[in-house]
Amino acid sequence: MRAAIAGASGYAGGELLRLLLGHPEFEIGALTAASSAGDRLGAHQPHLPQLAGRVIEETTAATLAGHDVVFLALPHGHSAAVAARLAELGGDTVVVDCGADHRLADPAAWQEFYGGEHAGTWPYGLPELPGQRERLRGARRVAVPGCYPTSVLLALFPAFAAGLAGPDVVVVAASGTSGAGKAPKAHLLGSEVMGSVSAYGVGGVHRHTPEMEQGLSAVAGTPVRVSFTPTLAPMSRGILATCTAPAAPGLTREALRTAYEVALKDEPFVRLLPDGLWPATSMTYGANTAALQVTLDERAGRVIAVIAIDNLTKGTAGGAIQSVNLALGLPEELGLPLTGVAP
Amino acid sequence: MRAAIAGASGYAGGELLRLLLGHPEFEIGALTAASSAGDRLGAHQPHLPQLAGRVIEETTAATLAGHDVVFLALPHGHSAAVAARLAELGGDTVVVDCGADHRLADPAAWQEFYGGEHAGTWPYGLPELPGQRERLRGARRVAVPGCYPTSVLLALFPAFAAGLAGPDVVVVAASGTSGAGKAPKAHLLGSEVMGSVSAYGVGGVHRHTPEMEQGLSAVAGTPVRVSFTPTLAPMSRGILATCTAPAAPGLTREALRTAYEVALKDEPFVRLLPDGLWPATSMTYGANTAALQVTLDERAGRVIAVIAIDNLTKGTAGGAIQSVNLALGLPEELGLPLTGVAP
Amino acid sequence: MRAAIAGASGYAGGELLRLLLGHPEFEIGALTAASSAGDRLGAHQPHLPQLAGRVIEETTAATLAGHDVVFLALPHGHSAAVAARLAELGGDTVVVDCGADHRLADPAAWQEFYGGEHAGTWPYGLPELPGQRERLRGARRVAVPGCYPTSVLLALFPAFAAGLAGPDVVVVAASGTSGAGKAPKAHLLGSEVMGSVSAYGVGGVHRHTPEMEQGLSAVAGTPVRVSFTPTLAPMSRGILATCTAPAAPGLTREALRTAYEVALKDEPFVRLLPDGLWPATSMTYGANTAALQVTLDERAGRVIAVIAIDNLTKGTAGGAIQSVNLALGLPEELGLPLTGVAP
Amino acid sequence: MRAAIAGASGYAGGELLRLLLGHPEFEIGALTAASSAGDRLGAHQPHLPQLAGRVIEETTAATLAGHDVVFLALPHGHSAAVAARLAELGGDTVVVDCGADHRLADPAAWQEFYGGEHAGTWPYGLPELPGQRERLRGARRVAVPGCYPTSVLLALFPAFAAGLAGPDVVVVAASGTSGAGKAPKAHLLGSEVMGSVSAYGVGGVHRHTPEMEQGLSAVAGTPVRVSFTPTLAPMSRGILATCTAPAAPGLTREALRTAYEVALKDEPFVRLLPDGLWPATSMTYGANTAALQVTLDERAGRVIAVIAIDNLTKGTAGGAIQSVNLALGLPEELGLPLTGVAP
Repeated sequence: MRAAIAGASGYAGGELLRLLLGHPEFEIGALTAASSAGDRLGAHQPHLPQLAGRVIEETTAATLAGHDVVFLALPHGHSAAVAARLAELGGDTVVVDCGADHRLADPAAWQEFYGGEHAGTWPYGLPELPGQRERLRGARRVAVPGCYPTSVLLALFPAFAAGLAGPDVVVVAASGTSGAGKAPKAHLLGSEVMGSVSAYGVGGVHRHTPEMEQGLSAVAGTPVRVSFTPTLAPMSRGILATCTAPAAPGLTREALRTAYEVALKDEPFVRLLPDGLWPATSMTYGANTAALQVTLDERAGRVIAVIAIDNLTKGTAGGAIQSVNLALGLPEELGLPLTGVAP
Repeated sequence: MRAAIAGASGYAGGELLRLLLGHPEFEIGALTAASSAGDRLGAHQPHLPQLAGRVIEETTAATLAGHDVVFLALPHGHSAAVAARLAELGGDTVVVDCGADHRLADPAAWQEFYGGEHAGTWPYGLPELPGQRERLRGARRVAVPGCYPTSVLLALFPAFAAGLAGPDVVVVAASGTSGAGKAPKAHLLGSEVMGSVSAYGVGGVHRHTPEMEQGLSAVAGTPVRVSFTPTLAPMSRGILATCTAPAAPGLTREALRTAYEVALKDEPFVRLLPDGLWPATSMTYGANTAALQVTLDERAGRVIAVIAIDNLTKGTAGGAIQSVNLALGLPEELGLPLTGVAP
Repeated sequence: MRAAIAGASGYAGGELLRLLLGHPEFEIGALTAASSAGDRLGAHQPHLPQLAGRVIEETTAATLAGHDVVFLALPHGHSAAVAARLAELGGDTVVVDCGADHRLADPAAWQEFYGGEHAGTWPYGLPELPGQRERLRGARRVAVPGCYPTSVLLALFPAFAAGLAGPDVVVVAASGTSGAGKAPKAHLLGSEVMGSVSAYGVGGVHRHTPEMEQGLSAVAGTPVRVSFTPTLAPMSRGILATCTAPAAPGLTREALRTAYEVALKDEPFVRLLPDGLWPATSMTYGANTAALQVTLDERAGRVIAVIAIDNLTKGTAGGAIQSVNLALGLPEELGLPLTGVAP
Repeated sequence: MRAAIAGASGYAGGELLRLLLGHPEFEIGALTAASSAGDRLGAHQPHLPQLAGRVIEETTAATLAGHDVVFLALPHGHSAAVAARLAELGGDTVVVDCGADHRLADPAAWQEFYGGEHAGTWPYGLPELPGQRERLRGARRVAVPGCYPTSVLLALFPAFAAGLAGPDVVVVAASGTSGAGKAPKAHLLGSEVMGSVSAYGVGGVHRHTPEMEQGLSAVAGTPVRVSFTPTLAPMSRGILATCTAPAAPGLTREALRTAYEVALKDEPFVRLLPDGLWPATSMTYGANTAALQVTLDERAGRVIAVIAIDNLTKGTAGGAIQSVNLALGLPEELGLPLTGVAP
């Protein structure tokens, strides 16, 4: 299978390439980008020596066409346009949008949080959600979830699927700086972020909020609202999300844990940690895994689920390839690392 | 004024010394510790060259007696014993407990979260709380608040004092590793914490939880419960606390901000940031300040206050000296840094 | 092939396991350790979920015997004893010493830098050194080089092999903290190492010094002396070594680069970077590669070679497996990552 | 005394302001910058709450004139022009160039390393160099040394002044990222620098090289050449420089240490550490101090001096104020922190 990557010089593009180089069924086709077109890939991704000499092409539908899979790791608003042109060119290509353009079903939510024309929805690339794995088998289009929604949905879907949590969700998450991308900005300089944790996008304005509400509401079968506060932590990779929701009346810690064990027992990439061990992002560094723990705060009457993922792997590129494996009829785990890199 | 420091080789002790060296009214008296007694201070606090040759003595009431102020930076359970012996020795010494022994008024809460005998309460060293400044003037005993409660109480007291928030508080906070102390433990090694955020003390079990509830309930005049989740971030210093509570019906963003402006307008150390700027711990590195921002999440119906402090400065040693200034009739700001060290 | 790992709960042991899990020819046999014997591996290596339930056994020759390969990741002085007992038990096991016991040929150097009985030398596991690859094919014993010597020998052997550098070598290297191991020590706490670079082992006393001199002298065919200063940098992994030596009279930058291109052109893991690009440890994070650049400082008359490796991968566990591949007649690159994890 | 700062929104400007706010003899006058003119200072230096509301003006000689001291924290090439216009306006202002324009005496070296017109030299602001303190008393112009030369000259001048070291110096230094400034560049993003040490400016091309050679040659009374390699470490502040030179024949460790003790015994800011303790940049974080240790590598025949400074404090802004204190006839230590901020 030949895969093309649009946005090959960015962080998501680099992670797609790292994982595809270790995938037994893929070879790397066209590499494209915008401002770095014409450069050697080695100038932008020096950790991928095998591809150092490859030349980055300009992102056009013509360049991307003719591959078995096209991964679009582009700013929101761009992938919909490229995907539309690819569709006109025909062919049986699987198109994977690592951006936001095809995630939200509600045009009003799209309009409020992103603006511009709503491109519609594609199959949502989170196989762990109830029923979702089946929808991804054989799909020709995949909308890769946002990194924060990946973490929050994995952390809370077992509670909502079992009716154990109420709809007033509060999430606070810490992300590594790669989530903010590679475009140079003063507040993302090493001098600014090292030794400092900061908040941003506070007050219900972060674009991933409606995506979390969409996913949890579907699982719960009733509207769920999410108060979401993201923070930036001094690390390159990783998300640690603390997700809380009111506990259903009479809920016990044992019943809660059992619900999680049942929901996750066959999941290859989501690991419910042994009792007493709490997630650290280092457990999942570079791996397509999630490390999850849940408890009941009896004092406050809330379910507390904490999850760690690598925002670039399970949160973006690894999650994308997991869905592509399903789309292409390959084993879901194929080529995806279970082991993190630690310490 | 002569000040003695018990626990001089630890992180809180080192910060007390750093600040007292810059305070015009203090000279450094006895320095004591447990396992490092007999060592030169320079072996433990190499950033304090002026005191490098001073010898650390053993922590005994006799050594600490006869000073104008004694700062106890000891593990919980130890300061109550030392304080009791100091009281027997008489004198007019101001005794400052930087540990937990004299914070909680409720013996049952003490028993549940700390265990052992309850030592009673001392005046609570957070002058910003309503009425608290007056209680600290002339006090001979000060219970320094925990670092997390300092952040949470400062962030939420204006909302509760004005009746703008409901009692179902959810707090998630990130702390630098110095909050976990200097005793060598494998999970605090640099190799483990760099590049990783982790959760701990989840589910209503962290010892600072009842202290937060005690403080907020007093301000609110009604019981407030707190769901508190602490996390460890890859930085040496700093706390960023995201504090949320249900918004009172009909609350507007403007009314919320006005309440904060009114509550904080004369506070020398708590700074409500300009609209649109959110706190980063780097704003307060090494300073006795808090950087605070608040907004209304209209979608989720919650007040969201985010605050940054330096856990060792405003969160421990600086807060202690601020209260001592009041106790001794000195200007409250004397000798306390307003400027952080950045970048 | 079945591999046993002695020292499975430490950093080198964890990295061996991470790599062996991705190696197509190995299955994991006995896992042993000292103080953590009896624990589940998951308590010590939470990034390796596949092995979380495995129980760590005590390190004895009997437990390690009967495997195709035994990796000894033990403190110096320990591996020689275990290896001797393994030899008594017979069998065709390949024994790989990741520690120092079998690196130094000169008993006096051993005595001076390590003390105690000299265990003799085993084939030195750095296949890139002239003639060394052949010596490792079919070997039953491998002495894995120290992490610093790996970096310095790779950086300078092309210059010495071509007679382009004089014997007065000066090396300053920065290492991540995992090089100092997992035993909890106060100076290795995150609070101490984050935001700080420090020197240690200065003045010709670091134990890796005679190993560097041994290797470079052999390549040069004449005694080479090395002034080596190690420093500790705030990162978990990686070594960046700046290696300088007097330039041979008349040496030009072009002749120097050509010598490096010739020496390295068939090396699978050592990459001479394109002109103008200098190494960063992030280029090799988690990979079995070295990123190398060289230039001539014409002003000072010195060859300057700078190299980046991952101290745990190419510097220890990856280098070990590379040599084992040769010893077992497998392809040298088998199972070893060429791609780093970045950013 | 009123001080103006040109370049107030950058890192050097911010550090000057932090220190001047704590200096008893200064008030802050005009704050100027280029692209951030018109902004509030709080948008750029949020750690300085006292000045948050001050408006940044455009950098012109007219705005800067009329102050007792003008600090120029500008890119090289800019300060010479501003200084020339200030001189035309007359007055008795002390002008302090924190940039490179007035450091190098040799026009050819200026031309080779910086290019453009050579502005001439001003009194060199490193009072610790032999005879230099006297030259700075009453000076009206001060050329603040580069951050790297500050570290290297302090580390090696005692050896060269005493004739104990030969002229073939090799220096490798690690710097925090603030040394690279605040202009956003991709390679300085947090995602790139965290977890990574990298080399740059290798091979005798870094602009601080001729400044080191100028200073050491003057002390030695004979030409000294320096091979200098800078590296970038994952920390915001700090320089750790490892400085080596051939030992004079017959030199002993004791004689070397004595020479350092004699040379440094009255220096208020340079601290020779106790035997056996090696510098860490955390010892000097935010302080105007240098932490220095020296030894003799008898094996390699080299003097090894290792020094830690804060590049922004002693390396730039603190060093500048120290010289200004001398220029204005104030006590040299006035307003300069001796204590670092640690951990």
